[in-house]
Amino acid sequence: MKVKEQDTIDSYSQSQITTKLKFYQEEHRRLTVLFNITRNISTELKLDKLLRILMDEVKRALKADRCTVFLLDKHRNELWSKVAHGEREIRFPGHLGVAGYVATTGHILNIPDAYADPRFNREIDKKTGYHTSNMLTFPMRNKLGEIIGVFQVLNKYDGPFTKEDEQLLDTISVISATQLENAQLYEEQKKTFDSFIETLASTIDARDPLTAGHSHRIAQYVDAIAHVMNILPNRREILRYAALLHDYGKIAIREAILTKRGRLTVREYSHIQEHPAYTRSILEKINFSNDYKSIPIIAAAHHEKIDGTGYPKGLSGNDIPLEARILAVADVFDALTSKRHYRDRMEFDKVIDILDRDTSTHFDEICVKAFKKIKLDVLIRILEDGTSDLLDKKDLKFLNNYNVNQLLEALKRHPRRGEDKLVAGTFNKYYNKAYS
Amino acid sequence: MKVKEQDTIDSYSQSQITTKLKFYQEEHRRLTVLFNITRNISTELKLDKLLRILMDEVKRALKADRCTVFLLDKHRNELWSKVAHGEREIRFPGHLGVAGYVATTGHILNIPDAYADPRFNREIDKKTGYHTSNMLTFPMRNKLGEIIGVFQVLNKYDGPFTKEDEQLLDTISVISATQLENAQLYEEQKKTFDSFIETLASTIDARDPLTAGHSHRIAQYVDAIAHVMNILPNRREILRYAALLHDYGKIAIREAILTKRGRLTVREYSHIQEHPAYTRSILEKINFSNDYKSIPIIAAAHHEKIDGTGYPKGLSGNDIPLEARILAVADVFDALTSKRHYRDRMEFDKVIDILDRDTSTHFDEICVKAFKKIKLDVLIRILEDGTSDLLDKKDLKFLNNYNVNQLLEALKRHPRRGEDKLVAGTFNKYYNKAYS
Repeated sequence: MKVKEQDTIDSYSQSQITTKLKFYQEEHRRLTVLFNITRNISTELKLDKLLRILMDEVKRALKADRCTVFLLDKHRNELWSKVAHGEREIRFPGHLGVAGYVATTGHILNIPDAYADPRFNREIDKKTGYHTSNMLTFPMRNKLGEIIGVFQVLNKYDGPFTKEDEQLLDTISVISATQLENAQLYEEQKKTFDSFIETLASTIDARDPLTAGHSHRIAQYVDAIAHVMNILPNRREILRYAALLHDYGKIAIREAILTKRGRLTVREYSHIQEHPAYTRSILEKINFSNDYKSIPIIAAAHHEKIDGTGYPKGLSGNDIPLEARILAVADVFDALTSKRHYRDRMEFDKVIDILDRDTSTHFDEICVKAFKKIKLDVLIRILEDGTSDLLDKKDLKFLNNYNVNQLLEALKRHPRRGEDKLVAGTFNKYYNKAYS
Repeated sequence: MKVKEQDTIDSYSQSQITTKLKFYQEEHRRLTVLFNITRNISTELKLDKLLRILMDEVKRALKADRCTVFLLDKHRNELWSKVAHGEREIRFPGHLGVAGYVATTGHILNIPDAYADPRFNREIDKKTGYHTSNMLTFPMRNKLGEIIGVFQVLNKYDGPFTKEDEQLLDTISVISATQLENAQLYEEQKKTFDSFIETLASTIDARDPLTAGHSHRIAQYVDAIAHVMNILPNRREILRYAALLHDYGKIAIREAILTKRGRLTVREYSHIQEHPAYTRSILEKINFSNDYKSIPIIAAAHHEKIDGTGYPKGLSGNDIPLEARILAVADVFDALTSKRHYRDRMEFDKVIDILDRDTSTHFDEICVKAFKKIKLDVLIRILEDGTSDLLDKKDLKFLNNYNVNQLLEALKRHPRRGEDKLVAGTFNKYYNKAYS
């Protein structure tokens, strides 16, 4: 629908002018509404927020009490939405109820008196405690005319929904369908991005059965540390990605050396030490968006040490990105606590002794301190990654009351008595499970 | 700027009504323009097309002869655009000229008489043959108020640009900035996607020095075949991605077996034969968008044979996706023609003899036929991938007149005489270069 340009005033009588004025005022209202809606929704590419804005705008434009937008999930043939102005997602088969009828047939359902209409399902009101008086259910179509969702607008304040409401919603439908499809596309791409990174991480983990799962565990450790340190969500995300990819450079190291049992020669060892530099050069070929440009730098610095004796660059102190200092702690912790078929896990207090011993030489003190504040339920879930559904929920709830520091105190104090025994015992039940 | 709702008519005198009518008519025009622009640009996420639509719409809205939108490339500090309504991209330092001044200062430049104004650079008119009379140059700001580009509107039909034009452009600026940023984001993500696939392909190629470059060459061969077969662009893109990733499953094959010289045991050989199935299972974990969902299936079928004796599924005939049948030809051709440090390339006619021999058992006839129609300059560029800048441009131009079929005829006929000698000789100059 293309809005037409206006006529000129000159030739009109007074009464014609009054009529015209009324027309233009009405048009003005309509266009104002449409323009504001269009502008408000076009700024948002996040599907959740976009849906919320759209539902608010439609509610306001049609002077109604509620609006829900259901989107059609073609693959699963389901309609879904965030519950009107709430957080919870609802899903149901694509043909059910009034919304399903409209999504399937493409008909508009304008019901002036819900309780007098057999198509209305009173059960929903009963469940939600809401009282529906009138409703307008309208198909949302994209530019190709395909139905991609349904508007459901409830309880217009002054009487039932009009033909004009339907027309307005028709135009809103076209505008919002485009933006919703863009947002869905954007989310799809984000998911694709995530799955690519997962694939790269799995590739590395798959090369060496001894370190299987390392990249995924370290991603969780750094996230737990970042949580304690209150690092902002976008930096946490970057850190998690860098953790997943930190060892990617190992792809360039010969497998025979990577998986060699027994002592490495000096030459072999220095070959392995090249892997962070490879990580950087490979990751730099990925066209990360500006937000993610630091990922290769962080990932490549996970073997730097705070005293400058690390590699590849020998950076020291704050010249090492904070994210890489966090990675260093997580990397060593995972190496020491990983299951090996030829040895048990190192005793937990000995692992922490090593972290303590190397604090201020290898590790940044604040990162180690943050690590020790990780809750034990979080820690044991990561340690048992892959089989964490076998953990007893009661135990996890109990372990949530303690962090690593408190476990260490318990281990030092009375590991065989009272609360200390409970904490140490519950943790070690899993930590040493397969070996004791 | 939020557009206000209108007053009511009741209380006005006749002259007030006429004034109001004029106001609403003007508002109506303005809102109509804005609404149409907003709707037209919000449907487009491709930056090129979006820029063209926007330039057209602004030109129309301001009743001007030309509009150019320059975007600011922050990293390179350059302004760039497609030349007004043309295809060519122009780029210049971000502070140069009228556009650079506006981008740097954020000032609006409304020049009613270009040739009377010292800020106008006549050289540009001289170069382009265009005559600028008046111009409006306007900063484009995003929601954060950052300048992300510049509008340059030339030659308003009825006299110089007005304050109202500036106001209209101000609103258009806000709306279009959002959409342009979305489009840029979208293109960035597409580039990221491409670079991820490149990284995966390079990962495989890096594992085995013997097959270095294989994934990238095969991607070019399939594209050349698809070009001959007139396959649509989106399918060609999928085919190219599938080619880049077809061997990814080799990541799960032990390196010692993969790179073993000499004869493989039956067990080792069957281990290697598992790689297409691994390709599929790994690629299926990538969250490809709906358009790309077929990539894992195609990539995994590159060792199927037309008579059903291939692996992993033993598919036959048209049960093998066309794209995979194309892959099969390209894969074998590359294996036979790759440089090996322990042997020369096989003679070209012998390579084709093998393709012919295995047509209708291993290969689909139409794919082999299409392969033979590839122009020789295209073929030699791929064969010499990585060093193709060393190819003589005259030779390439000459080879562009012949395809594989014609080369084969020349080789059979008079490889030492006349035109046949020229064709065969020019091709073999490169094909056998390093070894003869």
